[in-house]
Amino acid sequence: MAQEDVFKKLVAHCKEYGFVFQSSEIYDGLGAVYDYGQYGVELKNNIKKYWWDSMVLLHENVVGIDSAIFMHPTVWKASGHVDAFNDPLIDNKDSKKRYRADVLIEELLAKYDAKIDKEVEKAAKRFGDSFDEKMFRETNPRVLEHAQKREEIHQRFVKALNENDLNELRQIIIDNEVVCPISGTKNWTEVRQFNLMFSTEMGSTADGAMKIYLRPETAQGIFVNFLNVQKTGRMKIPFGIAQIGKAFRNEIVARQFIFRMREFEQMEMQFFVAPGEELAWFEKWKEVRMKWHKSLGMGDHKYRYHDHDKLAHYANAATDIEFEMPFGFKEVEGIHSRTDFDLSQHQQYSGKKITYFDSERNESYVPYVIETSIGVDRMFLSIMAGSYCEEEVPGKDGSVESRVVLKLPPVLAPVKLAVLPLVKKDGLPELARKIVDDLKFHFNCQYDEKDSIGKRYRRQDAIGTPFCVTIDHDSLEDQKVTIRYRDTMEQERVSISALKDIIGEKVSMTALFKKLV
Amino acid sequence: MAQEDVFKKLVAHCKEYGFVFQSSEIYDGLGAVYDYGQYGVELKNNIKKYWWDSMVLLHENVVGIDSAIFMHPTVWKASGHVDAFNDPLIDNKDSKKRYRADVLIEELLAKYDAKIDKEVEKAAKRFGDSFDEKMFRETNPRVLEHAQKREEIHQRFVKALNENDLNELRQIIIDNEVVCPISGTKNWTEVRQFNLMFSTEMGSTADGAMKIYLRPETAQGIFVNFLNVQKTGRMKIPFGIAQIGKAFRNEIVARQFIFRMREFEQMEMQFFVAPGEELAWFEKWKEVRMKWHKSLGMGDHKYRYHDHDKLAHYANAATDIEFEMPFGFKEVEGIHSRTDFDLSQHQQYSGKKITYFDSERNESYVPYVIETSIGVDRMFLSIMAGSYCEEEVPGKDGSVESRVVLKLPPVLAPVKLAVLPLVKKDGLPELARKIVDDLKFHFNCQYDEKDSIGKRYRRQDAIGTPFCVTIDHDSLEDQKVTIRYRDTMEQERVSISALKDIIGEKVSMTALFKKLV
Repeated sequence: MAQEDVFKKLVAHCKEYGFVFQSSEIYDGLGAVYDYGQYGVELKNNIKKYWWDSMVLLHENVVGIDSAIFMHPTVWKASGHVDAFNDPLIDNKDSKKRYRADVLIEELLAKYDAKIDKEVEKAAKRFGDSFDEKMFRETNPRVLEHAQKREEIHQRFVKALNENDLNELRQIIIDNEVVCPISGTKNWTEVRQFNLMFSTEMGSTADGAMKIYLRPETAQGIFVNFLNVQKTGRMKIPFGIAQIGKAFRNEIVARQFIFRMREFEQMEMQFFVAPGEELAWFEKWKEVRMKWHKSLGMGDHKYRYHDHDKLAHYANAATDIEFEMPFGFKEVEGIHSRTDFDLSQHQQYSGKKITYFDSERNESYVPYVIETSIGVDRMFLSIMAGSYCEEEVPGKDGSVESRVVLKLPPVLAPVKLAVLPLVKKDGLPELARKIVDDLKFHFNCQYDEKDSIGKRYRRQDAIGTPFCVTIDHDSLEDQKVTIRYRDTMEQERVSISALKDIIGEKVSMTALFKKLV
Repeated sequence: MAQEDVFKKLVAHCKEYGFVFQSSEIYDGLGAVYDYGQYGVELKNNIKKYWWDSMVLLHENVVGIDSAIFMHPTVWKASGHVDAFNDPLIDNKDSKKRYRADVLIEELLAKYDAKIDKEVEKAAKRFGDSFDEKMFRETNPRVLEHAQKREEIHQRFVKALNENDLNELRQIIIDNEVVCPISGTKNWTEVRQFNLMFSTEMGSTADGAMKIYLRPETAQGIFVNFLNVQKTGRMKIPFGIAQIGKAFRNEIVARQFIFRMREFEQMEMQFFVAPGEELAWFEKWKEVRMKWHKSLGMGDHKYRYHDHDKLAHYANAATDIEFEMPFGFKEVEGIHSRTDFDLSQHQQYSGKKITYFDSERNESYVPYVIETSIGVDRMFLSIMAGSYCEEEVPGKDGSVESRVVLKLPPVLAPVKLAVLPLVKKDGLPELARKIVDDLKFHFNCQYDEKDSIGKRYRRQDAIGTPFCVTIDHDSLEDQKVTIRYRDTMEQERVSISALKDIIGEKVSMTALFKKLV
């Protein structure tokens, strides 16, 4: 099945099984905003807990905070967001449609890539087994021509972005005869900067209200609280501050489901270190974070680093941890060495001294910062994408059935155990309910008595429940039940009294945490 | 100590010990917005978890969701917030200050109350033991005059509010010669309605952006997802949907620390029932919710119901659960019978059918709703206020010392256990760290080796840590430690190997949940 189809099916599955709904769906939705349904919220909460506990419980020198979405507007002046957090927009005068100029150019580059790929494909078909792709790419005149053209555009594009040259962005579009997909014309306006922060007005005084912003990142809430936490928590460098919270960006081109949303959630940790030690800590956190992702057991090969060539103005090192989504390897976490940029800026704009006295070095300094930053929603998407499987399984009487199963890590699964009485009579429902009532204090259990056992298994597979137990007539006698494992579909007869420990151990985060320390 | 002073001390304590900081403090703060510090966030998260699990894990027919802050603007038209979620504002033309007209009148009423109280106080002093307050209040001419005047104003005020009569609100202010506290003049503008929703602009099309709102309550996110959750979760009425999330109100008079903030968090559950059954369910949830609050052990006498006389237009019954704050009994949770108002409104505005087919009744209907709604921040404040104690305790050599202690419910305490080596040598720190490393997977532990044991106990008291264990030289031999209980300050010698169970049991939510079912 093509990866594009897998993605479509995944999106449909998220809706059909209560993981993700479009926001305000009964009002035909709100662009690039989504709600988490009854299973989605549990999965998301489990992801957040796994991150939070691994940061705050496992690291003695990492503490949390929860800062507000609203902050003083000068925060965003100091951080650079008021002046430089922009998208370059261009309108087509005929269709009245607005586009991101950089996206139009990226699509143009992609067209050249597609042209080259087409030549390669054609040749591969023509030459069969004897085809040497590398040689072909390096020597075929048409490929070389496309590649050269592409490279010229790419060079101009990178230079224009670096120099923030809006006219040149427009000129690239004009020179390459990019047309509006709606009107088909080349009738373009100037390129204008459009700030991505949402703004609103706070208060109502006779002198007017105050313009404030919805935070575009949670990090600044940590920076402005650096002194508060360091002093009241008696923290010694190196130490970190972790936070989970919503952030907002008025993306013009929001797409790929929950991968890029206008309202999203971040899990960020800012780790404060002595100047000069930041690159060693950067390497350390790269390693710690990769280990954390891999601990979930989604498959090590699905993760890779992507080091940044081009660094943000505040960074002296940066890497992404990418996950193999149905639409390619994509960033789920960024690790950035942000230097002392943010704290220095806040020191300058607030006029307050933001330094740390290091008793070992016997000097004061503005700390350097390593940031680890996860998008909760794209992490959610990566877990869903990595777990979604369609399988052929043995059906009744030797037939073959297909099943859709979410092979979620048990610690993250929304429901841990489904308890299923074989029939709705003879005391089986009562015993099943008794099991649920005993275990529900320890983990999320679901009771289901409707339809055949096979159908009930499929429903639990579809929401990723790792364990089902079936109560049959023998259970009343021997106090044993049949436990069925989601991934292997193997079944095993176990004592009811052993269920808490068997399942408890497999769904507990502690076991995974022990691998992390 | 006066309750006012207690409150001031509590606010200072919240800052000094890393529970609550003013937002953007280095920029001199942002009005009525606060951040939670390293201990505050843990307490807040524990409150949220205690609520969530008690709703979702313990009730088979309650599931969660997490809907976005951004919603389609028509949602707020349907809910009535666009047209009717207003404060009446009035400006003083000389000082240019803006006030809530209703608050000015409430302050006027309070002045009459104060006048009456003063008369009573004076008389009580004059008559001594023989003073009969009730008789005095009923017969003294000056008291009666004040009371009559107050009653006249109160009647006009209630009528004006009910009829939404802005001119009459102004007239009450004029007639009673209310002056601006800044300019001292009676030079007032008209009264105007001011909508309390924050708005922002989403998207950027050539045709213009869309005006959207930051949700003023989380409830509507549940209503618009009613069908999605009911259908994909195969829910049968009666059932509930629970949600925790931020909401925003542009309060003009925001005050009392985190009690009334512009950005705040709600824990809401909407319970859907058949028409006609709502009042029985209303009583049921009143009881369940009160039991939940009391289960935390803050003292049953600190809670009371406050039934509403005046109901919102959508409600047919409403009550508050109030907690005794330092500034009086105040609402921490509201329980409302919202009828079918919200779902019917959304049905009308969206044009989508929002009904439920009840197979037992064999009919379709728009469900009725019971809402339980907690402000997380005011719940946080109630827990802090109810836990804050200043005590005299025996000090060294028979002296008396004072201590500040937060008697937090152990399940909610940010740190569960502090591990303290008696001295920083002889292998005691190593043993202490080993204990932390074993237990940190199970609950939040803190290691502290700095200063005397007495000082370390005080620090843990101040953040509400229920258990401290001290490691001494004997511990190396007998593998026992001294456990010290926060509230009684009693000490006990226990095995290191028993710590996990002794403390684990006392900080586990499960034990409290068992009382709730």
